[in-house]
Amino acid sequence: MKIPILNPDSHSKIGWDILILILTIAITIIIPLIMVYHLPLSGFLLVFDILISLIFIADILIESHTAYSDQRELIRDKEKIMNRYMGMAFVTDLLAAFPFFMILSFFQNPLLLRIALLSNILRLLKLFRVKRTIGRIRNSKRLNPSFIRMSLLIFWILIAAHLISCAWMAIWEDPAALNPLNAESMYLRSFYWTVTTLTTIGYGDISPSTNLETIFVIIIELIGAGMYGFIIGNIANIIANIDIAKSQYQEKMEKVTTFLRYKNIPHDLKVKISDYYDYLWESRRGYDESSILQDLPKPLKTSVSLFLNRGIIQKVPIFKGANEEFIKEVILNLNPVVFTPGDYVVIKGEIGYEMYFISRGSVDVVSEDESIVYATLGAGSFFGEIALLLSAPRNATIKAKDYCDCYSLDKETFDQILVRFPEFAEKIREMAEKRRAETEEKQKKK
Amino acid sequence: MKIPILNPDSHSKIGWDILILILTIAITIIIPLIMVYHLPLSGFLLVFDILISLIFIADILIESHTAYSDQRELIRDKEKIMNRYMGMAFVTDLLAAFPFFMILSFFQNPLLLRIALLSNILRLLKLFRVKRTIGRIRNSKRLNPSFIRMSLLIFWILIAAHLISCAWMAIWEDPAALNPLNAESMYLRSFYWTVTTLTTIGYGDISPSTNLETIFVIIIELIGAGMYGFIIGNIANIIANIDIAKSQYQEKMEKVTTFLRYKNIPHDLKVKISDYYDYLWESRRGYDESSILQDLPKPLKTSVSLFLNRGIIQKVPIFKGANEEFIKEVILNLNPVVFTPGDYVVIKGEIGYEMYFISRGSVDVVSEDESIVYATLGAGSFFGEIALLLSAPRNATIKAKDYCDCYSLDKETFDQILVRFPEFAEKIREMAEKRRAETEEKQKKK
Amino acid sequence: MKIPILNPDSHSKIGWDILILILTIAITIIIPLIMVYHLPLSGFLLVFDILISLIFIADILIESHTAYSDQRELIRDKEKIMNRYMGMAFVTDLLAAFPFFMILSFFQNPLLLRIALLSNILRLLKLFRVKRTIGRIRNSKRLNPSFIRMSLLIFWILIAAHLISCAWMAIWEDPAALNPLNAESMYLRSFYWTVTTLTTIGYGDISPSTNLETIFVIIIELIGAGMYGFIIGNIANIIANIDIAKSQYQEKMEKVTTFLRYKNIPHDLKVKISDYYDYLWESRRGYDESSILQDLPKPLKTSVSLFLNRGIIQKVPIFKGANEEFIKEVILNLNPVVFTPGDYVVIKGEIGYEMYFISRGSVDVVSEDESIVYATLGAGSFFGEIALLLSAPRNATIKAKDYCDCYSLDKETFDQILVRFPEFAEKIREMAEKRRAETEEKQKKK
Amino acid sequence: MKIPILNPDSHSKIGWDILILILTIAITIIIPLIMVYHLPLSGFLLVFDILISLIFIADILIESHTAYSDQRELIRDKEKIMNRYMGMAFVTDLLAAFPFFMILSFFQNPLLLRIALLSNILRLLKLFRVKRTIGRIRNSKRLNPSFIRMSLLIFWILIAAHLISCAWMAIWEDPAALNPLNAESMYLRSFYWTVTTLTTIGYGDISPSTNLETIFVIIIELIGAGMYGFIIGNIANIIANIDIAKSQYQEKMEKVTTFLRYKNIPHDLKVKISDYYDYLWESRRGYDESSILQDLPKPLKTSVSLFLNRGIIQKVPIFKGANEEFIKEVILNLNPVVFTPGDYVVIKGEIGYEMYFISRGSVDVVSEDESIVYATLGAGSFFGEIALLLSAPRNATIKAKDYCDCYSLDKETFDQILVRFPEFAEKIREMAEKRRAETEEKQKKK
Repeated sequence: MKIPILNPDSHSKIGWDILILILTIAITIIIPLIMVYHLPLSGFLLVFDILISLIFIADILIESHTAYSDQRELIRDKEKIMNRYMGMAFVTDLLAAFPFFMILSFFQNPLLLRIALLSNILRLLKLFRVKRTIGRIRNSKRLNPSFIRMSLLIFWILIAAHLISCAWMAIWEDPAALNPLNAESMYLRSFYWTVTTLTTIGYGDISPSTNLETIFVIIIELIGAGMYGFIIGNIANIIANIDIAKSQYQEKMEKVTTFLRYKNIPHDLKVKISDYYDYLWESRRGYDESSILQDLPKPLKTSVSLFLNRGIIQKVPIFKGANEEFIKEVILNLNPVVFTPGDYVVIKGEIGYEMYFISRGSVDVVSEDESIVYATLGAGSFFGEIALLLSAPRNATIKAKDYCDCYSLDKETFDQILVRFPEFAEKIREMAEKRRAETEEKQKKK
Repeated sequence: MKIPILNPDSHSKIGWDILILILTIAITIIIPLIMVYHLPLSGFLLVFDILISLIFIADILIESHTAYSDQRELIRDKEKIMNRYMGMAFVTDLLAAFPFFMILSFFQNPLLLRIALLSNILRLLKLFRVKRTIGRIRNSKRLNPSFIRMSLLIFWILIAAHLISCAWMAIWEDPAALNPLNAESMYLRSFYWTVTTLTTIGYGDISPSTNLETIFVIIIELIGAGMYGFIIGNIANIIANIDIAKSQYQEKMEKVTTFLRYKNIPHDLKVKISDYYDYLWESRRGYDESSILQDLPKPLKTSVSLFLNRGIIQKVPIFKGANEEFIKEVILNLNPVVFTPGDYVVIKGEIGYEMYFISRGSVDVVSEDESIVYATLGAGSFFGEIALLLSAPRNATIKAKDYCDCYSLDKETFDQILVRFPEFAEKIREMAEKRRAETEEKQKKK
Repeated sequence: MKIPILNPDSHSKIGWDILILILTIAITIIIPLIMVYHLPLSGFLLVFDILISLIFIADILIESHTAYSDQRELIRDKEKIMNRYMGMAFVTDLLAAFPFFMILSFFQNPLLLRIALLSNILRLLKLFRVKRTIGRIRNSKRLNPSFIRMSLLIFWILIAAHLISCAWMAIWEDPAALNPLNAESMYLRSFYWTVTTLTTIGYGDISPSTNLETIFVIIIELIGAGMYGFIIGNIANIIANIDIAKSQYQEKMEKVTTFLRYKNIPHDLKVKISDYYDYLWESRRGYDESSILQDLPKPLKTSVSLFLNRGIIQKVPIFKGANEEFIKEVILNLNPVVFTPGDYVVIKGEIGYEMYFISRGSVDVVSEDESIVYATLGAGSFFGEIALLLSAPRNATIKAKDYCDCYSLDKETFDQILVRFPEFAEKIREMAEKRRAETEEKQKKK
Repeated sequence: MKIPILNPDSHSKIGWDILILILTIAITIIIPLIMVYHLPLSGFLLVFDILISLIFIADILIESHTAYSDQRELIRDKEKIMNRYMGMAFVTDLLAAFPFFMILSFFQNPLLLRIALLSNILRLLKLFRVKRTIGRIRNSKRLNPSFIRMSLLIFWILIAAHLISCAWMAIWEDPAALNPLNAESMYLRSFYWTVTTLTTIGYGDISPSTNLETIFVIIIELIGAGMYGFIIGNIANIIANIDIAKSQYQEKMEKVTTFLRYKNIPHDLKVKISDYYDYLWESRRGYDESSILQDLPKPLKTSVSLFLNRGIIQKVPIFKGANEEFIKEVILNLNPVVFTPGDYVVIKGEIGYEMYFISRGSVDVVSEDESIVYATLGAGSFFGEIALLLSAPRNATIKAKDYCDCYSLDKETFDQILVRFPEFAEKIREMAEKRRAETEEKQKKK
């Protein structure tokens, strides 16, 4: 029979993984109970045992035909897969799958039968595979890693509590007080004791009396204390990481407010600055665009920037006729700036060195005394493009109406880009010349 | 009836929110007690129940007419508000407000009556609104976020403890020891047990005996341990964040002292450096001005800088006649420097490249052998302005008298600014020429 | 009587502060015991009470004549001191000092006498001063802040435990089991119960039975759990801060080793790099000199750099005759570099652009085939100075013998400095000319 | 007898250290038991005691002849070693080695004999040496520091638990309940009590009754709570440090995804970016090569870079004939870049300014419409070298086939390097001239 190489991220493979995961959990719960209650492995349980063996054997076959990924590269070579499987999980998978009980029970030897019963514990080796399965499911579903980590923590704690409870039942001699308990109560009381101890609550209504019990309790307490410390450490770590963006932002704000207090900055300026930080937090969790994009490799950065700005750039008259490469360079050199409501973006008469593109929010073009609003420019608009041609004084005052996310492009950067596009630079120079002539004419008229 | 759209930050809306909050807490305390003690819903309690229903219905109306803010923008559009409310809190608000008891009790059917009693639990759904209300109150009052976070933690723990206590009362069978307890003692003992368990103290004087009790205790213990870990994690996180400025500063100091020890720096220099760091901490929590201002957008940065320095800049003779824009540029390019007592700011004969403005503290103008103090300059003074015109040697020694926060402006930066203000640059050049002539004349005289 | 203004850091003031601190602790221990055991305030205790009153009144006088420091500036103005004291600690100090008992006991009225006894609690208000006193002692003794923080934590816990124990004694009714206990045992058992509860151990051998006790225990448990969380949070924070240098260094190392593993770097290179990091850690806790010095203001930086390097700089022949300012500039522009054993610092024939000063360790001047060691240069030596004059090929190979801390000075920086010292630049140019002539002559000979 | 100076890292010295470590642990376990059980120091125990004395005396001799390392330098000077040993561990080592029992037991005086027995405790002073020994073993074996730290924590806790158990046994009066216990059970119960208390579980089945016991328990509880806090703090710290690379990486990813969500970036671009970060994590734990190498001193950096790139550089035709120094400079100025599958590395017709070397992954050389794949270049290939000679348009489109780790070398950097190698620069200029001629000819043909 020729089995094809499976893709580890395929739906059917993930499904199989989940089945194995559920079966592993089932046997982890059932097998210790069988052993503690000395349940006979017959009838339904025997069928279950045989079924488990068969499924686990099938799993070995499937695992040895599943491709694996090495640094984002999917290895589908059969020999490599085999070598890797042999070196990693094959032995435990085989021991977990081996039908010891079926084989040994043929001999009808009571000693062998006891060994056969004990051999069931080997099935629990399959627990080593839980982490891998979870890892695969996480990869294919893109689940929140903190959630996964928390769930796994709870899962392992419950598994550990179950195993400890079963062990405690096996060695617990509680003659006077609670006897005779039926099986369920016995397990319940044992699980109750385990949880009470592991959580360091320690009611003390169940406590060890024999030496064996005492030793067992000491070991569980030591494990429990470590485990509890581990849980608290993990929760503290998860909390610290959840809040990391927020706390970095608060740290920044605290710095600024301390500084402002120290310098006796007037109240309204303080409120304005504090509102600005609130806006940064609400609109982008305090992150700053340029630092985020600079980590990406250039092609990805270009893709993101193009997506964000191509439309607006192509509308600018002076960029008409520029080729694709030029537009790309311009977009990669845009500089994000934020204006808070009431900020002067451009003041009439000032000499301008940059043009602006509005990405979000709106600005008012106002008269010098701010009494008349000539126009309101919204997202997708641009202004100040003359500054890229010649350093003339601004011919209008522009004031932010609300919080504005803009991009600026300054003359210096623009000139540097032009150097690399000589034909287009020529065209721009002509445009500037024409503009200058117009401006001079206007000034003469005045 | 036409209801106007309400502002979520208005005083009356916040007042209503607080009323709802208090009522929510009240019903969270009262309803579980009613159910555990099987109190008849008649008389005062019935009035209370009807009142709650009415107020909660009013709340639905008010909520569906309250504007909401989306990234600092207040959305007042009725349809959008409706859609948002429907998609978020409407169902829970409706279930919490619905007068099940009143309606079902009409039928006089004992089964329906029991359902009616149970339906009271639905009122607790209003608890989901606490977070939102607290958020709104925080926004309008600018409360300390760590304090809010701590208070909410305590609030939820007490609510949880109350609910757990009521549940424990309902299933607790304690026949021999403490019976018959009156209602208050019963609740007290139950609350005592809950707190003892949740804090992992676990005296063990009250412990489960029936299976139901055991299961309940296991669940509470698991929740309690998680909750306790969560509390400790939160407290650890809050402590870490409170001290973050201090610990960053201590880290910096530790670096420096390690380095100084390694290099066998003499003791008095070490004390001087350590005092300098103490000063930084006491005066500005170790933060450095330029790094704080650089995060702000340019208009805000300009406002802050202008507030801090305009007065002093305009006093400088060589800046007389400079226009507004020029002054702004100068101010944005000031560089904060700190001098410790005894530091030489300027030494006679050295060639100077920067001028200084004193923002805090004072300096002495001393003779070359430091025996004579010609003058003491305090906050608001400036010196070394000649350096911006020509690179002549300093004509006096200036020594810091105490810790001085100064701003320096260096010739290079100044020249770069002048490039953008050609008319003013011309004026400055003349001044420099004149100065040079004077200096040369002086030197000839000597 | 005219009291002079005291210096808060003077030895006698610190001594007085310590006395008040000890008395505060004493009354915090004694007064609750007096109240719980209903000890009569007569004899020795009465003398003690009067003494405390007198000392605390004296303390008010002293405090109101102690200068205080505001941002490193000592405020000695009497009115300012008074205003500050009135606004801060005066009321609590007065209440703590007021001899209520003495005054009220004159009236011989049993009710007033009881009030007088209760008024003793007001003395505990002095506890609010502990933090201030500790702060002062710390400032004058420069104690380790982590140690102080830990000690204060322990101090407050013990004080809290004592107060809780006394309160528990007052309300504890333990008729059957442990009665009649003598006073010491009673306190001991109570303190034992407090500690057992606060540490969340909760043996349960002492547990509440009356409603009052139950309420008290609930409150203590809630406080205790919070306190315990606070302690753990603090310890975790202190541990994190103690290890911050180490963990930053380990983080760096981990980065590097991960990278080396990923790139399959040969083993000996890996060991060399790992040894280099060990050296950095052992010699300077992983800190890097230039980043440390750059935080200091220029005069302090100059002082440190001058201390480290003046001697060696003045020995260099080409710097002979340079003035003080020039030497300072050179020193401020030295660049620290580390060489690991076997590194080639300079290779014969390479064109050199920097000179080196050895600050620690030694280098070998070797022949081209490394068979002959011409010389060994130790700390305080320098080499490669010709590179500052002209870009000639190196005339020897120099190899680090052990870990070498060096400073390099490159030609570019040197030329920039020269620009500011035109006369000296002239001298250097002549030297270079002469050198070039010599070299050319040599090459012609060859 | 002349003892040679030993190397502290030699195998035999480490072996001896381990022997001493094991003996120290043994006596720490045995001596308290001897004292609690009042075992007679005769027979086997006497031999053991004498042996310990002899070995510890030998250890003093060995220690005083072991070189020590001071900042990576091995100090072998006998006098220095002696001074250092005298000032550090000699006194404790001597007290631990001194055969008090043997000497005092000669006198047959019962008082002296008791003192002799008590003096055994001095042997425990050897515990102070454990840290040093572990430090040495760690240095020679390069063990994981987190593992060492965890193991030491467990080791000290177990030692502390043992000592506390023995002390509790000595003062514990438990007349009614558990008497008469045999020695082993006694110790077991005592150890059980210690662990139950230190882990804050506190069953309460064993609790103090006498005053002495109560005081002892209070002290142990206070220590235990602190210890437990310390353990949790440590575990939390270790967890935080283990995950530091991961959490920094997650933080980065979170920033990017927040930004992408805010800007409504299309889904496929988001997946591409998220995959890119996954690749960075899987291939290099998110670290970035240039930032890692920049921390290394230049010779080490050169060694690593040469190892990584020499082969590939020498294959480039235009570098043929370049000397060693030139190649080094080029390698140090390579800039690592990553391309994700499908990225355009070079687009036909674009003007190129850099050449690329492939270090890992492969790229396709495709026709303008991407229909034909001319060639696939794998690791060790390079392309775009013409861009270093002249700024001609690219003559092919090159597209990343899978994740590609490349190095780029841009024309500007290349030109800067050439300045320092004038002869080679001449050669390169000729090559460029020839190339230009060829290109122009080609274009004429077209």
